[in-house]
Amino acid sequence: MSSSFGTLFQVSTFGESHGVGVGAVVDGCPAGLQLCEADIQTQLDRRRPGQSDLTTPRQEADRVEILSGVENGLTLGTPIGLLVRNKDQRPGDYGEMSRVPRPSHADYTYQMKYGIRAASGGGRSSARETIGRVAAGAIAEKILREKWGVEIVSWVSAIGDIEAPEVDPLEISRPQVDATLTRCPAPEAARRMEERVLEVKEAQDSIGGVVTCVCRNVPTGWGEPVFDKLEAKLAQAMLSLPATKGFEIGSGFAGTRMLGSQHNDLFVRKGTRLGTVSNHSGGVLGGISNGEPVIFRVAFKPVATIGKTQKSADFEGQEVELAAKGRHDPCVVPRAVPIVETAAALVLIDLALRQQARG
Amino acid sequence: MSSSFGTLFQVSTFGESHGVGVGAVVDGCPAGLQLCEADIQTQLDRRRPGQSDLTTPRQEADRVEILSGVENGLTLGTPIGLLVRNKDQRPGDYGEMSRVPRPSHADYTYQMKYGIRAASGGGRSSARETIGRVAAGAIAEKILREKWGVEIVSWVSAIGDIEAPEVDPLEISRPQVDATLTRCPAPEAARRMEERVLEVKEAQDSIGGVVTCVCRNVPTGWGEPVFDKLEAKLAQAMLSLPATKGFEIGSGFAGTRMLGSQHNDLFVRKGTRLGTVSNHSGGVLGGISNGEPVIFRVAFKPVATIGKTQKSADFEGQEVELAAKGRHDPCVVPRAVPIVETAAALVLIDLALRQQARG
Amino acid sequence: MSSSFGTLFQVSTFGESHGVGVGAVVDGCPAGLQLCEADIQTQLDRRRPGQSDLTTPRQEADRVEILSGVENGLTLGTPIGLLVRNKDQRPGDYGEMSRVPRPSHADYTYQMKYGIRAASGGGRSSARETIGRVAAGAIAEKILREKWGVEIVSWVSAIGDIEAPEVDPLEISRPQVDATLTRCPAPEAARRMEERVLEVKEAQDSIGGVVTCVCRNVPTGWGEPVFDKLEAKLAQAMLSLPATKGFEIGSGFAGTRMLGSQHNDLFVRKGTRLGTVSNHSGGVLGGISNGEPVIFRVAFKPVATIGKTQKSADFEGQEVELAAKGRHDPCVVPRAVPIVETAAALVLIDLALRQQARG
Amino acid sequence: MSSSFGTLFQVSTFGESHGVGVGAVVDGCPAGLQLCEADIQTQLDRRRPGQSDLTTPRQEADRVEILSGVENGLTLGTPIGLLVRNKDQRPGDYGEMSRVPRPSHADYTYQMKYGIRAASGGGRSSARETIGRVAAGAIAEKILREKWGVEIVSWVSAIGDIEAPEVDPLEISRPQVDATLTRCPAPEAARRMEERVLEVKEAQDSIGGVVTCVCRNVPTGWGEPVFDKLEAKLAQAMLSLPATKGFEIGSGFAGTRMLGSQHNDLFVRKGTRLGTVSNHSGGVLGGISNGEPVIFRVAFKPVATIGKTQKSADFEGQEVELAAKGRHDPCVVPRAVPIVETAAALVLIDLALRQQARG
Repeated sequence: MSSSFGTLFQVSTFGESHGVGVGAVVDGCPAGLQLCEADIQTQLDRRRPGQSDLTTPRQEADRVEILSGVENGLTLGTPIGLLVRNKDQRPGDYGEMSRVPRPSHADYTYQMKYGIRAASGGGRSSARETIGRVAAGAIAEKILREKWGVEIVSWVSAIGDIEAPEVDPLEISRPQVDATLTRCPAPEAARRMEERVLEVKEAQDSIGGVVTCVCRNVPTGWGEPVFDKLEAKLAQAMLSLPATKGFEIGSGFAGTRMLGSQHNDLFVRKGTRLGTVSNHSGGVLGGISNGEPVIFRVAFKPVATIGKTQKSADFEGQEVELAAKGRHDPCVVPRAVPIVETAAALVLIDLALRQQARG
Repeated sequence: MSSSFGTLFQVSTFGESHGVGVGAVVDGCPAGLQLCEADIQTQLDRRRPGQSDLTTPRQEADRVEILSGVENGLTLGTPIGLLVRNKDQRPGDYGEMSRVPRPSHADYTYQMKYGIRAASGGGRSSARETIGRVAAGAIAEKILREKWGVEIVSWVSAIGDIEAPEVDPLEISRPQVDATLTRCPAPEAARRMEERVLEVKEAQDSIGGVVTCVCRNVPTGWGEPVFDKLEAKLAQAMLSLPATKGFEIGSGFAGTRMLGSQHNDLFVRKGTRLGTVSNHSGGVLGGISNGEPVIFRVAFKPVATIGKTQKSADFEGQEVELAAKGRHDPCVVPRAVPIVETAAALVLIDLALRQQARG
Repeated sequence: MSSSFGTLFQVSTFGESHGVGVGAVVDGCPAGLQLCEADIQTQLDRRRPGQSDLTTPRQEADRVEILSGVENGLTLGTPIGLLVRNKDQRPGDYGEMSRVPRPSHADYTYQMKYGIRAASGGGRSSARETIGRVAAGAIAEKILREKWGVEIVSWVSAIGDIEAPEVDPLEISRPQVDATLTRCPAPEAARRMEERVLEVKEAQDSIGGVVTCVCRNVPTGWGEPVFDKLEAKLAQAMLSLPATKGFEIGSGFAGTRMLGSQHNDLFVRKGTRLGTVSNHSGGVLGGISNGEPVIFRVAFKPVATIGKTQKSADFEGQEVELAAKGRHDPCVVPRAVPIVETAAALVLIDLALRQQARG
Repeated sequence: MSSSFGTLFQVSTFGESHGVGVGAVVDGCPAGLQLCEADIQTQLDRRRPGQSDLTTPRQEADRVEILSGVENGLTLGTPIGLLVRNKDQRPGDYGEMSRVPRPSHADYTYQMKYGIRAASGGGRSSARETIGRVAAGAIAEKILREKWGVEIVSWVSAIGDIEAPEVDPLEISRPQVDATLTRCPAPEAARRMEERVLEVKEAQDSIGGVVTCVCRNVPTGWGEPVFDKLEAKLAQAMLSLPATKGFEIGSGFAGTRMLGSQHNDLFVRKGTRLGTVSNHSGGVLGGISNGEPVIFRVAFKPVATIGKTQKSADFEGQEVELAAKGRHDPCVVPRAVPIVETAAALVLIDLALRQQARG
């Protein structure tokens, strides 16, 4: 169903901004894995708003509680219930918004689709929805790391038109990424990004960017042709995140401008396995991992809710002027880093188990 | 499962290049629809290789046979079996390839994943695999058109670095697209693309490109948050096609360089419904169609099999020189046009039925 | 996945006896439905142990909390999270059982399958697991009742060899069922059943029985051939309940002893619709509801955990004598009544929505 | 979807009696398995009508053709397309039936559900629909046998009120079953069953019966709590077969009359593993196989189509007299034997692969 993802490692998420809480049920987690709340909390903390001046000042504690599936610190192989309680559970203080759909926001489509919508607007289109996925993905990351040595690292490679210089995907680490507020590991670009975000914030506007992600040590053989190819599931996972507008793997759109003789990744012996000289393929061939790093990029548009006044229409089609009250997040791209990582982990763990089913 | 797609309109495809045939089972097609082979054949013919000098000279008839689910020209509501027989069913004449994995081809990963592979190489990674999807998607298109008036049109917007000028997504039609061999509706760009493909063919090389697709008259409300958002399923469907490396919806990667105040699509009354002034969103808000045209772009890399000599390694890691024999398709992008259209139709019909389930 | 059920109304359950709690996520509940905790609590209360001398004296409050998907008393169309906290969250006091698998209990198979098991034994095979289903099914019942007038009533038709006389499936109501402690609506049989259960309890033994269920006002057309036929999904739902060993619809096993000319349900006009004179079919033809009451029976074995001493073997194969400590439930059949009803509701609502998807 | 079954070994069936053919796509078959048409044909031949005087005289060749997924006699790990062409592809000679729904047949419900139905009546409710499942299940049986030594044997344990004496489930073999026309391995009972069927045939009537099935050498650990318990999936698979009305595992309904102290299967060392003294559980504990033989029984009602005159109503509710023309199958129970076996194999293989996914 639409709030579930995965075949053998299945996540079902739930929750709106103003209900009791948000969370997930993870079905298919292997038994006997050491797991506690702290394993999950790290990525939730990286996802949390209010970490710096660059983001929304709302302070959300976002403490995860494991409801089931773990006993004495070990997973039982049964579904793991995860719950993060909302601090602010009072719906109803979004006033004007009940009459006026925010431009480029899901207020309008939720109302049209369901005939009702949460007081906070688009309910499940809220950024808070990702909490369940991040929590579930943090568990996936742990298994991938412990069982296969898989390392997943994302970083901000662009904010607006400021692009980070090339980063070595074999070397980049999460501490390097977290060293700057913008999560861009190139210090000079990071500094310029930070300035830009502050400008945009000052102007009560918002700005988008690009997150790049590398998954290292993915074994050869993950991915299920034809509809569940590795890149197809990554694309689904990424485009299901709020505010995403694009996905590229390997050479991406730039690869369309190359000749086959340039683009082909020639094989070469790498230790005991066959590797490739270049990696335009981004670690996949025919939808299956080939042993090279899986590399992809995700486009995030500027968030829709801005303080700047906009001329739009209310649900009746009457012209209105709209300006969001309160402080809004001028740039979600740095916070998207752990979201992209955990979303990738959910894809990989499921394909890993499906390949493992081959015995 | 990995060869099935869809929840209520489910397609299960089968077939390799050198078996008896390729095809699909469509489960969930509404009953009482007029349907015959000719309805399906049109898109299969557009997909077929050998339509012009620009593509591979192999002549494949690719006649579809309806095996079940239709009686007296009407669908029964039961599964529709579809079969296209292969002309060349002799495996075994790919000689050298059994020892040498083609660079950037699925030979290697299929062998590693399954411990065996079809004589033709990557079996299901072959372009022939798309026949089942195109046939199923042609049925989906018919329902979408007849029941909701949905029009899906794709065209080639770039080959290599030759980009077509902007095309009006509200006006473009399939006859306009098919007017040129490259399926680029801008004649001057089409001419240059054609020249480029012939050059590349002469050089025994290959070249990639971009297909743009518009879906018009999609009603508001299609798309199932959170994992089956409209753009998420489109991204999965497109990235599951052979040779694709990227997907963008609406503003895509370019949108990351915009401010929220520029990117937001302001609402305005359009007849009896609420529309938007711009369409950076590409017809979706929060994963749900908003009544504006759904517009997306798909990146196709240059195909891997080329006649030019390449230095690569065999399965043992020994250096080899490899040059594919016979004639190969220098550019699959024009043929990808009906493939993208029908893949989009499979996404839309499923989400349409899921919305219809709400009563 | 294995803890999820349904295609369009999907329930995902979680929870063991000794974790934080048990519950479910319901994905696909229609929007705009009035819903509050009290709507769900009624069936949870009927399911609860400790309602009478006939059952286990453990007092479990089992209060449900709605975590999401409902705002201002109305469903949002988004996933509904449901949580029932466990009172006793301390694992580890099952002592001997860690060494000795209880006969006919899931201790053994959980240990073998997962390499670990919950302290309480078979974890998810516990009767507490059904709480999530009952809560979700209570929501399903409400929709079925309000939208289609569907009435689902179960009762105890046998305990041990004491069988209730025939009950009129068109008239039987829940208050009639709940009028006796054994939930058998025939007072004389109920009295004898009660005596039998008390005898069995006194002997520290357990006893099984049969629950019969009728679903009235099911419209013609529900059921999805061929694998999701109405009776097939009912059978799966019932055999997935703890302690069940059999399922019959309509004439069931007795029908195998009839001739076709006796068994066939002849058609006859019933008001504006076509009905049948008899109902050996149990309300289904070819897997699809035919407008007659859906009637089925479920066999419950005597529960495995008994106080009586049993000669068995420990995990090492050493002979042991085993007698469960504390008080145990001598007969779960009366408590199974709401469990069967809500399990049936989960089947019906999903098939209803799937039929509704046909528009 | 409703014509698909299985999570990792997924079968999608298609076909009506009067279309081009019936068949299936098997997705998830392991690679490298030796497979040819003959492996599948054996069970199709056992299922085929016209094998003796006891069944319908229609001669159906039912030759299977493998369309894909196999090359040089080995499976590729890709979907296996299977097709059995119909001999009689002319719809339209069912005359009267277009106006009169056959009692206890799916004519009525198909018409009501889909607004149309196949000329042959209930289309997918036809016995021919099982061909696809039997073909797919024959592949499953082969894998189960070769990889785990699983042996699945079914037999007719009752026809009408003639019950076969107890059969040793550890010893019974298919040759023993096939030694009599009624597929009852007890010769005296078989003789009486044969007589009864001929009487019923003479009377242009039909009769039901019971098929018992044993699955030997099923390893401990197959079955996925809670909704995909082994017995739950078996129940679904069996109740999705045409003409089935009941399912029992182990002690079944008889078990409801036992005390826990009688019913509990005490553990005992069996070689290196833990076994049980009795097998009232039927080889499952908590939904997971426990290493003992899996034993279950399936109730088949008398088939609906009979030559005897019946008083019924047409679609308009007008009284009519109806007598099916031509010869009809008086008893499908013997032919159900391979159908039950292969249906069980589809359940087991899927749960086997899901357990194997645990690594």
